[in-house]
Amino acid sequence: MDYYSGYINQLIEQLSRLPGIGVKTAGRLAFHIMNMPAEQAEKLASAITEARSHVQYCKCCQTLTDQEICPVCADPRRDKTTIMVVENTQDLAAYEKTGKFDGVYHVLHGAISPMLGIGPDDIRLKELMQRLTGDVSEVIIATNSSLEGETTAMYISKLIKPTGIKVTRIASGVPVGGDLENIDEVTLLRALEGRTRL
Amino acid sequence: MDYYSGYINQLIEQLSRLPGIGVKTAGRLAFHIMNMPAEQAEKLASAITEARSHVQYCKCCQTLTDQEICPVCADPRRDKTTIMVVENTQDLAAYEKTGKFDGVYHVLHGAISPMLGIGPDDIRLKELMQRLTGDVSEVIIATNSSLEGETTAMYISKLIKPTGIKVTRIASGVPVGGDLENIDEVTLLRALEGRTRL
Repeated sequence: MDYYSGYINQLIEQLSRLPGIGVKTAGRLAFHIMNMPAEQAEKLASAITEARSHVQYCKCCQTLTDQEICPVCADPRRDKTTIMVVENTQDLAAYEKTGKFDGVYHVLHGAISPMLGIGPDDIRLKELMQRLTGDVSEVIIATNSSLEGETTAMYISKLIKPTGIKVTRIASGVPVGGDLENIDEVTLLRALEGRTRL
Repeated sequence: MDYYSGYINQLIEQLSRLPGIGVKTAGRLAFHIMNMPAEQAEKLASAITEARSHVQYCKCCQTLTDQEICPVCADPRRDKTTIMVVENTQDLAAYEKTGKFDGVYHVLHGAISPMLGIGPDDIRLKELMQRLTGDVSEVIIATNSSLEGETTAMYISKLIKPTGIKVTRIASGVPVGGDLENIDEVTLLRALEGRTRL
């Protein structure tokens, strides 16, 4: 990258640190940015700075938001007795899009992964446990259906069981519209195990 | 995207304007940025601002650089009588990486494309013609081997021919290491037409 000037290299390097962006893509983005109108580039830069400085964790559910308490937690119509535990803010948004869940959330910001050295203390589990003193009647664990997500679900369920609060796990099975032929064996077996009476 | 706060939406929107970045990727990048250490996010933002404000076009060859005259044009060892015409700064860098070309460049910043409404006046052709008064002996046209690149090459060659300066085009054919079986017919025919005696 010696053929470019310092500022270009600097921008390529910073962009290539983003997830899924290699040096080649970073180069393409960098040249696109340099050919942008100045005010557009300024908007992008300030969106980064402002999001990073204004966005914080909700004091209650730990989701990323620009308020002390996020809109979901602050909504008096939401059922505070049911807490859905998700891995991150995007997962919360995915369930919010369905518009059918009227409980509240708890965002862990990660999942337990011995491989990556992420233990129970590295995700926001302590904050979840602190919320369970009160009139919570159900904790729905909606971590991903991956090894890490399942490990986390098992761990949380063991942690909560002694309190007597009902702990549930979202169903794992064939996705709607999914073609059985293209679905992996583990999912097929899960779907079979989790069959329900019609 | 109503589930996110204003600052998060703003960042996702700005990121999704970059080429090849859809809303989903922009979301992933945005959440990565918000989880970055503050100084890292600041570095990224300032790399954008600084690159956009300091990088300019070389007064001579029009490449993007942070100096008035780029390092290639300023190098007294480079042969100023041979000019290689490329579409953009990345293409210049690709030839510089070979380390075998000791002439200078001219960067067009685009190619003629009637489809996209890009005409000869929209690329830096006028600047190229202005450089041809002097002791230039050869212009090597290294625009891409696409429809637009070929159109541009033809146009430039017609423009320069009357001046008596030698105009050449880089060879088009089977890439080194390329498997004939997987190469398109047009390229195969080009390779045949451009065959050289062994």
